[in-house]
Amino acid sequence: MSPDELSRAEATPAEARRLFRAGLVTPTAGWCRGFAQANLLAVPRSMAFDALLFAQRNPGACPVLDVIDSGEVTGAVLGEHADVRTDAPAYRIWRDGELAEEVTDAREWWTDDMVGLLIGCSFTFEHPLVEAGVPVRHLDAARNVPMYRTNRPCRPAGRLRGDLVVSLRMIPEDRVAEAVSISARFPAVHGAPVHVGDPAALGIADPDSPDFGDPPVSEDGDVPVFWACGVTPQVMIMESRPPLAITHAPGHMLITDTPDHDFAVP
Amino acid sequence: MSPDELSRAEATPAEARRLFRAGLVTPTAGWCRGFAQANLLAVPRSMAFDALLFAQRNPGACPVLDVIDSGEVTGAVLGEHADVRTDAPAYRIWRDGELAEEVTDAREWWTDDMVGLLIGCSFTFEHPLVEAGVPVRHLDAARNVPMYRTNRPCRPAGRLRGDLVVSLRMIPEDRVAEAVSISARFPAVHGAPVHVGDPAALGIADPDSPDFGDPPVSEDGDVPVFWACGVTPQVMIMESRPPLAITHAPGHMLITDTPDHDFAVP
Repeated sequence: MSPDELSRAEATPAEARRLFRAGLVTPTAGWCRGFAQANLLAVPRSMAFDALLFAQRNPGACPVLDVIDSGEVTGAVLGEHADVRTDAPAYRIWRDGELAEEVTDAREWWTDDMVGLLIGCSFTFEHPLVEAGVPVRHLDAARNVPMYRTNRPCRPAGRLRGDLVVSLRMIPEDRVAEAVSISARFPAVHGAPVHVGDPAALGIADPDSPDFGDPPVSEDGDVPVFWACGVTPQVMIMESRPPLAITHAPGHMLITDTPDHDFAVP
Repeated sequence: MSPDELSRAEATPAEARRLFRAGLVTPTAGWCRGFAQANLLAVPRSMAFDALLFAQRNPGACPVLDVIDSGEVTGAVLGEHADVRTDAPAYRIWRDGELAEEVTDAREWWTDDMVGLLIGCSFTFEHPLVEAGVPVRHLDAARNVPMYRTNRPCRPAGRLRGDLVVSLRMIPEDRVAEAVSISARFPAVHGAPVHVGDPAALGIADPDSPDFGDPPVSEDGDVPVFWACGVTPQVMIMESRPPLAITHAPGHMLITDTPDHDFAVP
């Protein structure tokens, strides 16, 4: 581990959020070891029921860790003194399903009636994978995880619909079973993989060109393993075209005060 | 097992729903062995976000199995040809937090914009308990499970608030650990107990006078074990006083087409 990786891994969530609030823009993979990171989907209250229902109906892709109701800026999971509007390294502002802007501070767009859904992130089970000796290639390479749109439709909710997005980890063949069983213990953060093997089965034509994040790193004998991904709501926004939505930028997550192991089942 | 118990246990969910739709009123404990039963909370769409958020924030008491959106009468969990408005043995109609009527058919009150939350029921882990040889006293006595209001507040959501309701099972002391670990495998249906032992710790003064259901049956050496209960939304209604809500009558559940084991974690 380089000194930089060490300090990223050992930063407290409050320290990391303070850096991001001050303007540091960086993917959060590998940051604040042991603390859960969250995807963000924020919509005006008029759309909040459909958004929460979309999450409830697609719990693999959109496991809800907490909801920051209108008028609030943090919650039990994110932590005291946090601010959902400023504490991710980067945000995306969506208007009518188009990416209007990418910003480091979302306060200008965060209307009084905005409701923020914090959605579980597969980074949460990466630490247990590493602890078990399963290599996580994008962490080793200090890259963002590769993410892809698939041909699998999510279950719609009201006017909200869209295809499933997955993250990819290249896993040595003899560690795949372990990767499955370890991640299965974390149903609140996507749980077990949705697919092991041929990317074409998910409609992914070229794994080297991910739709989000960085290209995959692999070694001989690695097998592609795909997990449902919290970027799914961003594709839902593109397809459903709500008037206004705010998300984190892919891979640039909200780091919460909640330990990863809080989301493990016995 | 008496012939009656046998036929209740062996009825298919579709058969049971047809009987209840035709007017049969009976607690559903012990019916349709192996199929999940669900609590119902239905509210107009204007309150549906708060209701879904209340459930999301209190997943122990209100684990959402499915949501039947306005305009729908069934869903993937409840099953084809089911009708959420008629297929529970009994419903409660609530106006401004008061129980206005108890009916066997809720269609007259089910407005076009009604949203129905199906909430997991502890009956789902009773079959695995019985299979493991842990006695479930109220099943053996063909009674409804005893349920109690506690002094533990739920996490509020918008204007919705209320205290936790628990169900009680008297468990032989040497089987308590097993009852805990078996039910913990079912987080979608209340999961592990919230309390083992002295009822006073939950503010329950007299366990022989439950707030809902029948008095407990116990044998020498039994220990009281309490699980979060899907009747919690009914106390939430009493305390929050929404203009209109529809629930099942306690213990008179919706029987779904979904096998219990679908809600077990690995």
